[in-house]
Amino acid sequence: MHIKAGLISAILAASCLAPPVWADELVASAASPNNILNVDVRIETGGKLAYAIKRRGEDVITWSRLGFILTNAPKFDGGFSLEKKTLASHDDTWEQPWGERQFVRNHYQELRLDLVQKDFRNRRIAVVFRVYDDGVGFRYEFPKQEQLKDVKISDELTEFVVAKPGTAWWQVAGEVAALEHPVLKTPVREVGTANTPMTVKTEDGTHIAFHEAALVDYASMWMRRVEGQKFRAHLTPSATGPAVERRAPFSTPWRTMQIAGDAAGLYMSDLILNLNEPNKLGDVSWVKPSKFVGVWWEMHLNKSSWGSGAKHGATTANTRRWIDFAAANGFRGVLVEGWNIGWDSNWAGGGADFSFTKSYPDFDLPALSAYAISKGVRLIGHHETGGNVAHYEKQMDAGYKLYARHGIDSIKSGYVTDAGAALFAGPGNSTHFAFTDSQEASRHFLTAVREAARYRIAIDTHEPVKDTGLRRTYPNWLSREGARGMEYNAWGNPINSVDHEANLVFTRMLSGPMDYTPGILSLEGVDGKPIHSTQAKQLANFVLIYSPIVMAADLIENYEKYPAAFKFIKDVPTDWADTRVIHGAVGEYATIARKDRRSADWYVGSVTDGAARTLSLPLGFLAPGQRYVAEIYRDGDQADYRTARRFDLVAEQRTVDANDVLQLKLAPGGGQAIRLSPVP
Amino acid sequence: MHIKAGLISAILAASCLAPPVWADELVASAASPNNILNVDVRIETGGKLAYAIKRRGEDVITWSRLGFILTNAPKFDGGFSLEKKTLASHDDTWEQPWGERQFVRNHYQELRLDLVQKDFRNRRIAVVFRVYDDGVGFRYEFPKQEQLKDVKISDELTEFVVAKPGTAWWQVAGEVAALEHPVLKTPVREVGTANTPMTVKTEDGTHIAFHEAALVDYASMWMRRVEGQKFRAHLTPSATGPAVERRAPFSTPWRTMQIAGDAAGLYMSDLILNLNEPNKLGDVSWVKPSKFVGVWWEMHLNKSSWGSGAKHGATTANTRRWIDFAAANGFRGVLVEGWNIGWDSNWAGGGADFSFTKSYPDFDLPALSAYAISKGVRLIGHHETGGNVAHYEKQMDAGYKLYARHGIDSIKSGYVTDAGAALFAGPGNSTHFAFTDSQEASRHFLTAVREAARYRIAIDTHEPVKDTGLRRTYPNWLSREGARGMEYNAWGNPINSVDHEANLVFTRMLSGPMDYTPGILSLEGVDGKPIHSTQAKQLANFVLIYSPIVMAADLIENYEKYPAAFKFIKDVPTDWADTRVIHGAVGEYATIARKDRRSADWYVGSVTDGAARTLSLPLGFLAPGQRYVAEIYRDGDQADYRTARRFDLVAEQRTVDANDVLQLKLAPGGGQAIRLSPVP
Repeated sequence: MHIKAGLISAILAASCLAPPVWADELVASAASPNNILNVDVRIETGGKLAYAIKRRGEDVITWSRLGFILTNAPKFDGGFSLEKKTLASHDDTWEQPWGERQFVRNHYQELRLDLVQKDFRNRRIAVVFRVYDDGVGFRYEFPKQEQLKDVKISDELTEFVVAKPGTAWWQVAGEVAALEHPVLKTPVREVGTANTPMTVKTEDGTHIAFHEAALVDYASMWMRRVEGQKFRAHLTPSATGPAVERRAPFSTPWRTMQIAGDAAGLYMSDLILNLNEPNKLGDVSWVKPSKFVGVWWEMHLNKSSWGSGAKHGATTANTRRWIDFAAANGFRGVLVEGWNIGWDSNWAGGGADFSFTKSYPDFDLPALSAYAISKGVRLIGHHETGGNVAHYEKQMDAGYKLYARHGIDSIKSGYVTDAGAALFAGPGNSTHFAFTDSQEASRHFLTAVREAARYRIAIDTHEPVKDTGLRRTYPNWLSREGARGMEYNAWGNPINSVDHEANLVFTRMLSGPMDYTPGILSLEGVDGKPIHSTQAKQLANFVLIYSPIVMAADLIENYEKYPAAFKFIKDVPTDWADTRVIHGAVGEYATIARKDRRSADWYVGSVTDGAARTLSLPLGFLAPGQRYVAEIYRDGDQADYRTARRFDLVAEQRTVDANDVLQLKLAPGGGQAIRLSPVP
Repeated sequence: MHIKAGLISAILAASCLAPPVWADELVASAASPNNILNVDVRIETGGKLAYAIKRRGEDVITWSRLGFILTNAPKFDGGFSLEKKTLASHDDTWEQPWGERQFVRNHYQELRLDLVQKDFRNRRIAVVFRVYDDGVGFRYEFPKQEQLKDVKISDELTEFVVAKPGTAWWQVAGEVAALEHPVLKTPVREVGTANTPMTVKTEDGTHIAFHEAALVDYASMWMRRVEGQKFRAHLTPSATGPAVERRAPFSTPWRTMQIAGDAAGLYMSDLILNLNEPNKLGDVSWVKPSKFVGVWWEMHLNKSSWGSGAKHGATTANTRRWIDFAAANGFRGVLVEGWNIGWDSNWAGGGADFSFTKSYPDFDLPALSAYAISKGVRLIGHHETGGNVAHYEKQMDAGYKLYARHGIDSIKSGYVTDAGAALFAGPGNSTHFAFTDSQEASRHFLTAVREAARYRIAIDTHEPVKDTGLRRTYPNWLSREGARGMEYNAWGNPINSVDHEANLVFTRMLSGPMDYTPGILSLEGVDGKPIHSTQAKQLANFVLIYSPIVMAADLIENYEKYPAAFKFIKDVPTDWADTRVIHGAVGEYATIARKDRRSADWYVGSVTDGAARTLSLPLGFLAPGQRYVAEIYRDGDQADYRTARRFDLVAEQRTVDANDVLQLKLAPGGGQAIRLSPVP
């Protein structure tokens, strides 16, 4: 017997009760400030709750259900009555301590629905929508109530029904290192279960990016395609119980849809940041956007090793060499991996040998840090956990203390594991493996950042939980990896595809900064295997792939070998007053202009996939009436990522103003980088 | 940093270790007895284990990985070495106490692989393949070992990569009452996460049914499409921890693929039964295949009610009327729903009001049961739990005892819930909601059957865990629902599609018997709403949709109104000596011939979807040289399920023998039923 019908039959049978049947009834609507997006909410037959979204009158999301399956109470699905609805407008502008732009406008209409389930002892839940011109976010609020003190969530019934046929750029969820899997491009109807952000382009050209904001003490949302173009939020499973366990009152993360008429519009949206809480750390002047170099790429090339021995990379001598190079070229940071005891074993997924305070004997941390500071440079700390969170949490504080004592104010942390999941502490001395996007993982990653803040240390997380904009609330969460980085070009199994950067901008980068480690001017990985890039594209990536801390990742000798290209790497800043996406198409090309936060300079980065392109760059973003010197780093006329001409880089200058339109000639697999400085 | 590469880098870094890199190596192969199917197994780079299947030399399943993610130990995925491989042949024939055929041949080649993970303290696991001419099953065996005493399984890494593009008939998994959702037909590439059986037809005409056998104390397998045509086993989540928790040694259920050149071949396969353990109950002569009628359809038509009051259906008087009707027409059973206290509330998902021993005052169980037995009839018990397993388990034994005391030897149980999941008992007095295909649900359903056997009671489970062939081991598990039954034609929200039966035969019916409740000669549901069937099709369903216990579901007055059609319903048996699928196409048409277990008679059922068809029926299955009287119940020449002519039924006789070929003329939405009796 079918459930619903079973219930209805039963109730018909019980003549005292009326069947819980309503007609579909529109109960609330909200429009974005300029009426570009509209959200409708209805209560359907059976008291089920659903929403729909239109853009400029066209369906974007058709009726999609809302609700939960719980393990400790009947599900929130149907029987809803609207108790109260509240519409409110909000418009303010806030300042980022660092970011893609200095000032962010937060302008939306909020629709709050307080709902009650009369058949379930008047159990309550609220749904809050925030409707922006460039997207929609909604979340659930579980109030404090006697009927449901602890909320144990088996899964969400939150749906996303894409209105029109379209193409999706997505990653398979639930895989080992899922965030580092290639981005797949398929019809929406062929998506399986996807991570977010998932970017969709529908047949009418509308772009939608599905993601979430403010993932705090909750399981990450996967997008499980149910059938056709209907998706349902699927919460990352827990290793120990229901996907989510919380005590009411609490709110879920925001389920977000950035919605725009083109790909550029997606990246221009500040929806994710706006839906996060303001800075909770107060003065964060100690968080320093900057560039760094260091002992890293050489290990990926097998020129040196993380482990001890003859090839050990993190030696005092080698580190001094890097500090000198950084000081000589204006890099603030020097990263050193493999400095600490614990690397001399099959550590991935084990990690129990790692010490976060004991250096290898050939690495003198105090002396090196003092030496660096004396030259205006800071070491960047490194905490590789091997995915052993349980072990790390025992030493994390001591590790932070040690670094703080030696003036080290940023740490790159790593969670490499080959065990399929990270190892977390359970009751007593027990441990268990759980996904790095599970609820307990979301707790650990945020705790690591909060604790670091107490020592005024900034964190750059590798193998992280996905970015959901928490950098607004905790500005010391400087950056993270969370996608295929340059290192894949070292390993070559396989290397990153030629369209990788043009994909990243409109997929992974919608979630936040990425520590991509650009600037491989040698254009080669292990054993000289060429990578899918021209030299100009390597420069463009410094502007294109935003991160407040950026590693110029190549070896010293390569930067010395290519001084012309290296000049741009030295010049380009990592903190911006403004960002403009000039144009782009997902996985094909992208051009972004950014204004330096500390000068009047603008920087432009443009990349293409395997196709040669000539793109027009109107300079209207420049200050009117002001002349600028444009330092242009472009592909040579014969440049091609598939040939030795990939090194053909032309560095030239011209004078321009806001009325000029530059033609960017991009080689196959190429790019272009431009610095624009006001003529004195 | 990517996990694998991270590990390799780390190990390269640790100069003492060699990287765990192998070439792909074929380590074992097995062929089916007649070399129709071939299974290859290889160990791939990184020591990963994979299998592939060919049929007559053509790829059916291409390299698909095997393994597990655990929560209490590193995952079983890679680092495997083959310790031992064993090939063995098996061929025997066993007898079913009841079934689609009396004798079943179990003929296969078994390939056993004992594997060891040297990098994980020589942790062991075994994989056993059984290769039949009509399919392949494999399972994992976790041996007793110090390194892994308790096995906590987060999910399987078992893959199924469909080699060629194809069409899939599937149901969305993880839904409320998932097994009662419509069967979807999509390209394989558009499947989301599916229940099993999932039926696939590839472009070369090969048919594959993915399912599992012997689901015992384990979570049901869903098929999650990863990307393209690659699926991965996804274990039904648990409400309280990892999907599966077991103490070693134990074996998983068999992962099964029935593979045939056509749809008929799928249904002819005994793979699922063969992979289950033999009868553990010994003498089961007390299990009685038979037909029944009773107090049920009238409630679905709202002519009477489950609950008490003026409309109460389960009254002594009404039940006597049904007993008299059953006795007069040779039905062994009379089902009475709504006989017990607890129906007078919104019980679905609650169910705590149900008594399994206390009758409503207007229902005299002892007197009615005695009256029935005096007329050669047995009441069929009814245990509706409202999905409240915790509550039911407290009374189950008392409920069985009561029925046994009154000579009631079969029970229809129900697990209707509107709460999204059934309610199970936890530690202390706690309860929690969990899927009815979770590990604990699989335990409950089997416990209910085992306990019933102690009272010599047979079980017909509604809203069950899916059928995986356990009727072989526990022959008192007579039947179950687990798909959209006739009741949907009563409710009309919506009614079953016209191709429903042609779908069922090649999807749900591959898993085992279904209590479909056929025989609605009135061809109408609530308020006279017509159903998608001719009268002849209603008769054909008695042969087509196999169940050892079958309810002739219509009202007495309708059977009295159509005596010609009713004769076939009275004649048709429910236990078979042999079964032959003459022809069929998934969702289009199906013709099945079955031989009565207790006579020399054959019965044929044929149905079509909305299209009129004329199908040839060669009678070669009849005994050579023997003449038979064919009692044919066919659609009238003007019959059409869309018009009032749906009632046009022609009952005619002719004499035939094995050399004859009948032409079955099926009306749109029609069918044909035939009884073939030897001429004395």
